[in-house]
Amino acid sequence: MSDSPTHMIKSYEQELKRLRNLLTEMGGIVENQVALAAQAVVEKDADAAIRAVEEDPRADALEREAEQFVIRLLALRQPVANDLRQIVAALKMTGDLERIGDYAANIAKRSIVLAEFSLPYSLTGLAHMFRMVQENLKLVIDAVGDNDPDKAAQVWRSDDVVDEIYTALFRELVTYMMEDPRNITPCTHLLFIAKNLERIGDHATNIAETVHYAATGESLPGQRPKGNTSAYAVIRPSNP
Amino acid sequence: MSDSPTHMIKSYEQELKRLRNLLTEMGGIVENQVALAAQAVVEKDADAAIRAVEEDPRADALEREAEQFVIRLLALRQPVANDLRQIVAALKMTGDLERIGDYAANIAKRSIVLAEFSLPYSLTGLAHMFRMVQENLKLVIDAVGDNDPDKAAQVWRSDDVVDEIYTALFRELVTYMMEDPRNITPCTHLLFIAKNLERIGDHATNIAETVHYAATGESLPGQRPKGNTSAYAVIRPSNP
Repeated sequence: MSDSPTHMIKSYEQELKRLRNLLTEMGGIVENQVALAAQAVVEKDADAAIRAVEEDPRADALEREAEQFVIRLLALRQPVANDLRQIVAALKMTGDLERIGDYAANIAKRSIVLAEFSLPYSLTGLAHMFRMVQENLKLVIDAVGDNDPDKAAQVWRSDDVVDEIYTALFRELVTYMMEDPRNITPCTHLLFIAKNLERIGDHATNIAETVHYAATGESLPGQRPKGNTSAYAVIRPSNP
Repeated sequence: MSDSPTHMIKSYEQELKRLRNLLTEMGGIVENQVALAAQAVVEKDADAAIRAVEEDPRADALEREAEQFVIRLLALRQPVANDLRQIVAALKMTGDLERIGDYAANIAKRSIVLAEFSLPYSLTGLAHMFRMVQENLKLVIDAVGDNDPDKAAQVWRSDDVVDEIYTALFRELVTYMMEDPRNITPCTHLLFIAKNLERIGDHATNIAETVHYAATGESLPGQRPKGNTSAYAVIRPSNP
């Protein structure tokens, strides 16, 4: 019985399910890394920072496991059409998830330096950006687990809001730096933290595009929405 | 005759060669984008900046073409073992190349703002970092074209030098910002330019790891060399 077509198909479906589970497990780890990084920055929580960094090898190990599994699936099952698209998509998404984990770990490292400074301003804007990115990340990992193109499209549409917050934050931080040179080191780290968050949002959007394509065979329409104009930002000191 | 095994094999080899050509063509485009971005920053050349940005859709289109080609190859040829590893590797490398193009375009955009400022210091350090990254990028694209693990290992080993230059540059730029608030905006863009360059170096290292693995079936040993400690940098103003 074990080699009957039904059994083969069943076991193939189980393998695809296992691949999806590897992805959502990896998603859960990086989601947790981002949550720990947020806690580390906003609450000056050094323990959270250390845990965010320590999770990184687990995400990397899952990426390698998923990759090996994909190669085995391709070799043994020789999938075509829809299945093949799903499997190649999984490979792409592990790459994005791995980068998200890297960025979260980098944010956590910077939070440790940041905690040495007493900041003369609140981190409300940054905390807001964290929440937005975390919501998108959660939603996109749900979209991966459910293979849901509509949820994916929702994430894709909201990335420009994250970009707009980033651009506003960028200007705000540069202004603080101009007001007092003692703000320069902490604000530089905050700039990079915000930039890393913005990249996490970008990778969530990449994943959304991949989920949508894998589920429907159709790309999301045209250029993705863009609200980040910080590369063109010119801010001049008020008292030169 | 057209369906004879020999013909099939020949045409399969041609397809693998075509895949490699797509990769090196994409590599050539992003290499050129980085060269244009360097010219834009160091020589304040706005035309070069515009050209670097305008090349981006070409790199993106080649990425999509390579992806479609990989999916077709997997479906029609159902490769195993060594061939499968090469094809999956190609897919991974297009992702890294696409990011390199993105970073080069971002550098080019920032150069346009930067050109509005008269900088009170030379860009020697940054120009040096550009040259190092460009050398590594050239070498790794050669390694892709020749499927050469030794060249790949050479790139992999030299990434820590790029990281060290980045860390030194980071400290230098923060110091300029502290000396005069008018330096803050241009130096912030320079910080992000340097960071983007460092990421380009990282992606070149990723590609090196992939080439090595695809060619030999072996990963490069242990952790990659790391010279970037800027996430932990604390620089205090000399006259607070």
